[in-house]
Amino acid sequence: MRRTLDFLLLNWLAAEALTTRPRYAEHSRETFASTLDTCERIAAEQFAPYARQVDVDEPRLEGDAVILPPGAQKSARAYVDSGMLAAAQDWEDGGLQLPCVVQMAANAFFWKAGIGLGGGGLLTAANANLLMAHGTKTQQDVFARNEFAGRWFGTMCLSEPQAGSSLSDLITRAVPDGESFEQDPLGPRYRLFGNKMWISNGDHELTENIVHLVLARTPGPDGGTVPGTRGLSLFIVPKRLVDTAGNLTGERNDVAVAGLNHKLGYRGIPNTLLNFGEGRYRVRGGAGAIGYLVGRPGEGLRCMFHMMNEARIAVGMSAAAIGYAGYEASLAYARERRQGRPMGPAGKDPATPQVPIIQHADVKRMLLAQKAYVDGSLALGLYCARLVDDQRTGDAATAAEAAALLEVLTPVAKSWPSRWCLEANSLAIQIHGGYGYTRDFPVEQLWRDNRLNMIHEGTHGIQGLDLLGRKVLANGGRDFKALLDKFESTAARACEVPELARHGLALRGVSEGLEVATREAWRDGEPAAVLANATPYLEAFGHVVIAWIWLDLAYAAHLQLRSPDRLHAVPGLRGVIQTAGFFYDFELPQAQTWLAPVAARNPASRVMQDDWF
Amino acid sequence: MRRTLDFLLLNWLAAEALTTRPRYAEHSRETFASTLDTCERIAAEQFAPYARQVDVDEPRLEGDAVILPPGAQKSARAYVDSGMLAAAQDWEDGGLQLPCVVQMAANAFFWKAGIGLGGGGLLTAANANLLMAHGTKTQQDVFARNEFAGRWFGTMCLSEPQAGSSLSDLITRAVPDGESFEQDPLGPRYRLFGNKMWISNGDHELTENIVHLVLARTPGPDGGTVPGTRGLSLFIVPKRLVDTAGNLTGERNDVAVAGLNHKLGYRGIPNTLLNFGEGRYRVRGGAGAIGYLVGRPGEGLRCMFHMMNEARIAVGMSAAAIGYAGYEASLAYARERRQGRPMGPAGKDPATPQVPIIQHADVKRMLLAQKAYVDGSLALGLYCARLVDDQRTGDAATAAEAAALLEVLTPVAKSWPSRWCLEANSLAIQIHGGYGYTRDFPVEQLWRDNRLNMIHEGTHGIQGLDLLGRKVLANGGRDFKALLDKFESTAARACEVPELARHGLALRGVSEGLEVATREAWRDGEPAAVLANATPYLEAFGHVVIAWIWLDLAYAAHLQLRSPDRLHAVPGLRGVIQTAGFFYDFELPQAQTWLAPVAARNPASRVMQDDWF
Repeated sequence: MRRTLDFLLLNWLAAEALTTRPRYAEHSRETFASTLDTCERIAAEQFAPYARQVDVDEPRLEGDAVILPPGAQKSARAYVDSGMLAAAQDWEDGGLQLPCVVQMAANAFFWKAGIGLGGGGLLTAANANLLMAHGTKTQQDVFARNEFAGRWFGTMCLSEPQAGSSLSDLITRAVPDGESFEQDPLGPRYRLFGNKMWISNGDHELTENIVHLVLARTPGPDGGTVPGTRGLSLFIVPKRLVDTAGNLTGERNDVAVAGLNHKLGYRGIPNTLLNFGEGRYRVRGGAGAIGYLVGRPGEGLRCMFHMMNEARIAVGMSAAAIGYAGYEASLAYARERRQGRPMGPAGKDPATPQVPIIQHADVKRMLLAQKAYVDGSLALGLYCARLVDDQRTGDAATAAEAAALLEVLTPVAKSWPSRWCLEANSLAIQIHGGYGYTRDFPVEQLWRDNRLNMIHEGTHGIQGLDLLGRKVLANGGRDFKALLDKFESTAARACEVPELARHGLALRGVSEGLEVATREAWRDGEPAAVLANATPYLEAFGHVVIAWIWLDLAYAAHLQLRSPDRLHAVPGLRGVIQTAGFFYDFELPQAQTWLAPVAARNPASRVMQDDWF
Repeated sequence: MRRTLDFLLLNWLAAEALTTRPRYAEHSRETFASTLDTCERIAAEQFAPYARQVDVDEPRLEGDAVILPPGAQKSARAYVDSGMLAAAQDWEDGGLQLPCVVQMAANAFFWKAGIGLGGGGLLTAANANLLMAHGTKTQQDVFARNEFAGRWFGTMCLSEPQAGSSLSDLITRAVPDGESFEQDPLGPRYRLFGNKMWISNGDHELTENIVHLVLARTPGPDGGTVPGTRGLSLFIVPKRLVDTAGNLTGERNDVAVAGLNHKLGYRGIPNTLLNFGEGRYRVRGGAGAIGYLVGRPGEGLRCMFHMMNEARIAVGMSAAAIGYAGYEASLAYARERRQGRPMGPAGKDPATPQVPIIQHADVKRMLLAQKAYVDGSLALGLYCARLVDDQRTGDAATAAEAAALLEVLTPVAKSWPSRWCLEANSLAIQIHGGYGYTRDFPVEQLWRDNRLNMIHEGTHGIQGLDLLGRKVLANGGRDFKALLDKFESTAARACEVPELARHGLALRGVSEGLEVATREAWRDGEPAAVLANATPYLEAFGHVVIAWIWLDLAYAAHLQLRSPDRLHAVPGLRGVIQTAGFFYDFELPQAQTWLAPVAARNPASRVMQDDWF
């Protein structure tokens, strides 16, 4: 994976150019490389050895404690020690002031080595980042900094048993805690009551405390309930109460683990049902989980979604990394495993020795498809991370363009890797034959682990609705147009290169097809009729985006092949161009078949009746 | 599932017409129905309750015994008691003389309720059927009949650790056992030496004995080794030796379990590595597993493949049944689970109650796709089973046509359900959201169970090679032409019906596309270049076949809707027509994208080099 990341970061995305910006001035090509070196090494030494252990030895509830196997502890400590929790923070806050694109690339090593390991570090970082953006100075000092230091870990508590994707139906309540509730130095103090479902890292013994960020419904100005998402506010609810110096007060907050979900994969991270305020741990004289308001009442969802682009890009990147793990495993297997013989003009000669299966075209096809999926996904994820950097540290025009592209690309960066790197993992199993179906090889676990990514952080269906229902329409379609312009400039460049011109024309064709289908779908269309085909639209959009990425990569490889001071070895560069061609011939044509029903507002799903099933 | 099976069997496939043939004269619509009733009931009562138990409580090796959980014992007994092991046998042999099509339909209930349950009955039946075709009278009486009676279970021992798909590389040896080896009443007696891998039911305590059918290499006429598959012979190797009356002699044969494979799913059936003749159980004074030759030396593979069409159809049917289980589970969930609200002209109103998620178009899309995959697969499997009946009991012309169609359809009947009903299981998880990722619901297990079907009984890639490399070329292309004629007659009928005419034209188009691509691929093509794209060809071929099946089903539903003595309820018939339309609009167009590289002999996979990855 390192070779791929180096090509993407240094060559394709010109990450080194970021060091000309003030925020990254202390960085250099060497500091980026050393970050990758360190993370690659720690992942290999402190993550990979425990990947199977946390799968086989699932989290279990003992009394009111969630117990994880030893590997979970070790990898969590190793992740904290790597400094990656605070990688994006300022130097003076103990951070590394790393660009997002380097941080994502470095994290990919951990995700590849063991997705359920490292204590779910990204969740803690996201939690703390949110507090840095919306919390008070005291909340940042007390909670965020202890999270960045790895002393406490964090969670995000959104879903409830009756409301997964539908956040407007959350019913967890928060009520002011006493007359003087506004005087608490940690923030306006409330008592929370309700049940939260699907809480990753909701309980564990990895750290001395856990910082829950909880969405709950606060009373409106008239004391009544505000319906919908506008009634939601955000709270810090520590498992153990703390003082303003960050010391534990010795009080257990009223947050109880009501159960563990036994998952198909991704088992290193315990997934819990949490009860807030059921009175199991009465605290300061009463039931109710004590929580401190973050930001203003009613703005909980806005605060919570602040980091959503990054979180969704991270999900896509982690799906890509799991896909990559399977690709590497099956490539190694295909090079070692001998079976069968090539077909000669006179058939096969059983007297000759068997050959490594990588010599069979169908095995190469399965490896090429994996490479197209996983490298394409990594590239898209890093491209988006680079946009995050541009949005934060680029000049005004750069930042504006980056923001526009990010809006449209984020649903794809989350959903496409989640779907197609899962398919890559299935192909990795297939290359292993019967062995791939057993626990003697890692690929079956990777396939199970990766299945989660189409579900969490906004399901696949939700991403489609977001894309077709909001993102391509936003700003009068200008964000979408910015992306189409990107397609065109890549296509134009490619058309100048004989080897790539065919693909340049194909990209122009599907780009126009995408634009036309989008316009046709919304022409006099009522939303319900248009959005019935949001998922096929998402699939098509994703394939077009990845085709664009692959052509851009092939162009970069082409330039490198011709460059006198070439950075990369020739075989790898040929592989990029070959894989791009594979994607254009074997994968991209599907996009148009998915777009046809979108453009026609095909009513098949809408018209279907319950009793016809 | 029963409603679907009734429509397919009674209406579409006219199974009742089989009762006019002498072999099935004792049967009637009522006996068929009562067989289905019985199997549905036993599956619900004696299989379904243990499906999770055999998954969680994996087979384990204790000493030299493989131990299964209690549910495995109960379901195995229930399957034996159902009489289905001998369902296809003659009345006088204790069988039910059932048509293959009814037997397959009845088995689907067991597969749906728990794929790893029932003691792998089909394997035992296949083993015994093989002996009925190729064994001596004594071998049939001693081994086959005790298997049909469920007293002993059987296995098929083909693969070896160094040779999975590549049977010409088997090295297990069989040597004559003493001077008088040809005088044994159970058949020419050999001693076998070698290791067999992936042996389902290779050991267990479900029955008092296990009858292994083993492929091994016999010496050639000059005493040397005959290379390739022509050197392979077939042997009966009982775990415990028996006399000609079928009594155990008390001698343990030299067959030892060397290990258990820990599988991703399908766990009710232990999968073993068996050592033959390593001397662990020395028998009659020496090492070597005692085995009795079946058929003639060198004809082992021919004997073994005798039942292959049926076995492959059964794999496809079982994949369909597992898909059906997920479809039923997700349909039930979608009808119960309330979340979100429909989009109205003014958006969504959070003050209204949440609705069952089956009201959301994207959920209906996922259910429609599942229905298209699982009903389509069941229909194809039963169609092929009906062809098996025609081949055996039809008049000469019918039998010849059936044989031709079966040759071409079998790779599809095995591979298409294995791939697309796996996708159906993934959609069933997706509909469940986070719950689908947990063991609280059955869908995650179904997805794991079904993943095996693309691997065993000839991998997906092998099916593609068989189809493009052999089946469509066989008999000068006449078998393939017989299938194309079937497509045309369905298309012609559909074109007479306004509601279906559009699909009729589409079927004509893709049928022609398939024929052209096949011809183009082989025009002056060397096999290695053509077969490099055998898998995309298989995918395309499969989609065209299923499109034909769906149009034929829609036509049957259309006739029923208009029939004065309608057999089925209107909503179900409307559902058939709606699902056919969904398949034509959302799925079928992919076929042409898969065919393009086949027709062009796209060299992407062949050209790819090892060091480009």
